[in-house]
Amino acid sequence: MKKELGARNCLYPMPVTLVGANVNGKPNFITSAHVGIIDFSHVYLSMGKMHYTNAGIKETGTFSVNIPSTSLVKETDYCGLISGRKADKGALFNTFYGKLKSAPMIKECPVNMECRLVNTVDMPIHDVFIGEISDSYCDEECLVEGSVDFARVDPIVFAMYDPYHFKLGDRFAKAWNIGKKLKG
Amino acid sequence: MKKELGARNCLYPMPVTLVGANVNGKPNFITSAHVGIIDFSHVYLSMGKMHYTNAGIKETGTFSVNIPSTSLVKETDYCGLISGRKADKGALFNTFYGKLKSAPMIKECPVNMECRLVNTVDMPIHDVFIGEISDSYCDEECLVEGSVDFARVDPIVFAMYDPYHFKLGDRFAKAWNIGKKLKG
Repeated sequence: MKKELGARNCLYPMPVTLVGANVNGKPNFITSAHVGIIDFSHVYLSMGKMHYTNAGIKETGTFSVNIPSTSLVKETDYCGLISGRKADKGALFNTFYGKLKSAPMIKECPVNMECRLVNTVDMPIHDVFIGEISDSYCDEECLVEGSVDFARVDPIVFAMYDPYHFKLGDRFAKAWNIGKKLKG
Repeated sequence: MKKELGARNCLYPMPVTLVGANVNGKPNFITSAHVGIIDFSHVYLSMGKMHYTNAGIKETGTFSVNIPSTSLVKETDYCGLISGRKADKGALFNTFYGKLKSAPMIKECPVNMECRLVNTVDMPIHDVFIGEISDSYCDEECLVEGSVDFARVDPIVFAMYDPYHFKLGDRFAKAWNIGKKLKG
């Protein structure tokens, strides 16, 4: 039996990321699960306009997306609890820069992408930033045959409205494959 | 040790959804993990312009996002393997309509959202559709105190580049909470 919930966003689970930008010349990181894939070379971030990080993304035209492991859950959750206006969140991590030179990335996160801002969609209370990926980085121990193995990454997965952080579960079916059984 | 991967989209894991639209007057569904949250009342879809579904979204100005359980993995994978031009994918499911009357939803999926198209971002090979959620629906057995319990939904979670479908793992930390330990 279906129950009507009203207009409620139920698009979960989503990956928890740490979005990085230099703000006033210093690395800052904000927790976000309002992120996604546009295509093979573009990602988006949706960030409430009140956030400290937005100005840094606009000013530098660059940002990073870092994928923390479950072992970083305290630091990750903390970066969503406090504003960069009040705390030096860059000091929590070891940071590094890539090709773009201005998008700070987190060494402790097994997966990192540095992005160039290519489009901003002005929503009522959010900036939707679309970034072109300039380069991606991964810890060697999370790579299998040159590709990221997300079981090894052990990412944090988020679902409202618990609100709880989940682990990634087991692989159970091959994509673009198991559906072939229904063909014909 | 970090390894540079080149410009590769590593923003995973993502939820696997079935996106619905009426195309030429008939329900059609396409598998997508290129979806995300804009804010509490908006979602986005990024859909390659070659897809059959795009015309239906543009024509009707509406679409649905349905979240399948792992028990629907064959049907879900199949909807990503074959075009609505060649197969009647609407016939795979029992469909229903909500307030918008034109966004077909899937009864067998525990979570459904019907959306009104409010913005389209024209990317080189993708249409990025931003939808305002008009109403949401959930199977009663997946609700706990009126909210969707994603452990009960048992969603399909996707990560390139295996490419494999994963299950959702266990809850392990409370969001907006575990990070408080780092405060002060």
